Amino acid sequence: MEHNHILPKGFEAAGVAAGIKENGALDLALLVSLEPAVMAGTFTTNQIKAAPVKACMKRLAEEDVAYGVVINSGNANACTGEQGQKDTEKMAARLAKRLGVEASQIYVCSTGHIGDFLPMAKVEKGIDQAAGALSPAGGHIAAQAIMTTDTCMKTVQEMMVIDGQPVCITGLVKGAGMIEPNMATMLAFIMTDAAVEKRMLQAALESAVRQSFNRISVDGDKSTNDTVLCMANGVAGNDVLNIGHPQWIEFCETLNLLAFDLAMQVMRDAEGANKVVTVTVQGAANDQDAEMAVRSIANSLLVKTSWVKNDVGWGRVMDALGYAGAKLCEETIDISYNDFPAVIGGLASNTALETLQAVVALDAFSLLIDLHLGKGSATVYACDCTEEYIRINE
Amino acid sequence: MEHNHILPKGFEAAGVAAGIKENGALDLALLVSLEPAVMAGTFTTNQIKAAPVKACMKRLAEEDVAYGVVINSGNANACTGEQGQKDTEKMAARLAKRLGVEASQIYVCSTGHIGDFLPMAKVEKGIDQAAGALSPAGGHIAAQAIMTTDTCMKTVQEMMVIDGQPVCITGLVKGAGMIEPNMATMLAFIMTDAAVEKRMLQAALESAVRQSFNRISVDGDKSTNDTVLCMANGVAGNDVLNIGHPQWIEFCETLNLLAFDLAMQVMRDAEGANKVVTVTVQGAANDQDAEMAVRSIANSLLVKTSWVKNDVGWGRVMDALGYAGAKLCEETIDISYNDFPAVIGGLASNTALETLQAVVALDAFSLLIDLHLGKGSATVYACDCTEEYIRINE
Repeated sequence: MEHNHILPKGFEAAGVAAGIKENGALDLALLVSLEPAVMAGTFTTNQIKAAPVKACMKRLAEEDVAYGVVINSGNANACTGEQGQKDTEKMAARLAKRLGVEASQIYVCSTGHIGDFLPMAKVEKGIDQAAGALSPAGGHIAAQAIMTTDTCMKTVQEMMVIDGQPVCITGLVKGAGMIEPNMATMLAFIMTDAAVEKRMLQAALESAVRQSFNRISVDGDKSTNDTVLCMANGVAGNDVLNIGHPQWIEFCETLNLLAFDLAMQVMRDAEGANKVVTVTVQGAANDQDAEMAVRSIANSLLVKTSWVKNDVGWGRVMDALGYAGAKLCEETIDISYNDFPAVIGGLASNTALETLQAVVALDAFSLLIDLHLGKGSATVYACDCTEEYIRINE
Repeated sequence: MEHNHILPKGFEAAGVAAGIKENGALDLALLVSLEPAVMAGTFTTNQIKAAPVKACMKRLAEEDVAYGVVINSGNANACTGEQGQKDTEKMAARLAKRLGVEASQIYVCSTGHIGDFLPMAKVEKGIDQAAGALSPAGGHIAAQAIMTTDTCMKTVQEMMVIDGQPVCITGLVKGAGMIEPNMATMLAFIMTDAAVEKRMLQAALESAVRQSFNRISVDGDKSTNDTVLCMANGVAGNDVLNIGHPQWIEFCETLNLLAFDLAMQVMRDAEGANKVVTVTVQGAANDQDAEMAVRSIANSLLVKTSWVKNDVGWGRVMDALGYAGAKLCEETIDISYNDFPAVIGGLASNTALETLQAVVALDAFSLLIDLHLGKGSATVYACDCTEEYIRINE
């Protein structure tokens, strides 16, 4: 969090080193609303869900208000069975007791290594310590405490005026690998002091996530722990936002922008990646085909490695298209890099190789594939795959 | 080809440096039968097929006999449109003329970079030169001339006696990356002097490929050029092999063994890989689920990188299982490494971490996942993914 970033009114945060990470780094964060808030959330589609993910999903379905989130890094509390679920509930209860609220009103998130039980003595002590350190200025330390392989903390803030009241939305995110469309090892927390109807906040969050976190791909893996939570506590004093409110669309657009900004921060910090490539497939027979094609390209290891040394590599793009399962006609495929045609009608264009290489050498560029078969389209934000990725994960 | 490997009777081969590869390495090979042979073939499932793949598929459907194959490395002749098809036909015609046979009786294979036209003057001159060098002892130089990123040539030979006659089967293969179940950037050529009925040879080859080349996975990419061709010329003098022949099963089993040996040679030479991991999913609800699950694990970049430094990484295996799309029950999942249980009922076993690490440190080990839901099973031969893979492909 940059120093000018503040939490929305009525929120406090803290981060401590509880000893979950062996290196003594920050590993436990609290995000707390002083007033009852409504919560929205989206979660991993992985069938193997970590204990805290299951707990969040249950709370989201059953509880009307929420008072905060406990987050630990360094241990995913995934594949930990009943013990894992008990530990999650203990974490919620510990913070709830300190705040004088119900355990069911506290959400829990974990990220880190899979398959180990949490060191609960350390975790509970850490929660107590963090609860004592809660502060309106604690956002930046909380953003640091949720990091795992991230090389930098990732935050964003948007301000708007609703019903004449200043409204603030602040987002924190962690995640740098295991990222694939449909969520990733990624935890994102959005807090706002706006008053929002619970069901509408959920709809707005789902829409924002579809256009941001579900459009980025680092390595094709989806994690057991992905979670995006959004808390709105109404302290700003605006009329409750819902679909009938004249500024509803404006609020949704701001939330979209903020989620997109957070997702791009994740991409820029993608493990071992040096560039962000916006891959779009258009002209597909339908949107489903476009989706299959764009993911096949964005997840192809051969395509991603070709970008490392600024190789144009459109042959590998054609190859990945060919096994994507989408309807294709080789003779109608066009491929361009930042609007410079590389392939026209399935064949190499006359564009000078140096021109295309100059595009691929950029930190960010667009790769557009037009199949000329229909109106289906889809976009994914991808990255290159360097030796550094292997070093981080081996 | 080891020095004691010889071609089956009635076959000759050659390899030359035609100048297609810029570094002056061998890049053009001929495999020729002096007698009319029957041909069988299996090809890439990629929708984008190289010109020579299309030409082979047409010949296989239309022609009764074949006299040989021209193979070039260094250029895939893929995504080259009509020009690419003309060049393929020119290659076949050039060798056919030298042999005094029809161009439609000569098959063509190409492997290398996608999207460039072949340097036909060099290719045709190379075919002439190679035709002049054809020899019963030319197998080893042909095996070298088909290599691209391979670090060693890959050949195998099996001998058997059919109807009292010695029968020889010799196989050559190239391929070291872009390998995925359902064929890869891989060219394999099998020659035998056995007499075999054409339709039965095709059936035997398809069965052998299903159990070998379609079971290996290096990086999840399928190429535009994958081809396995099998030529039988009957010079051994056995009664024609077909399903009614008492030694039919024996012949098929020998072909299976030979194809499996070639596939394992490809895996051992997989780009940047140091170990071969036999991944089996059993107890799936059905075979299709087992297939989805085993491929999800074998192609997970996070799983493959975890093996590099001998990390047991079963958490990443669980994660890859979770997004595979197969029916799962977390509480019934067992995972073992060379029969040592790592996960029992979805939770970490008591096996000492050192024991599991010692297994993963081996050059080859088995990873068995039992879902305990049904009778579906599938196996894929996978490898680790090292920084070397990125260096080769960037």
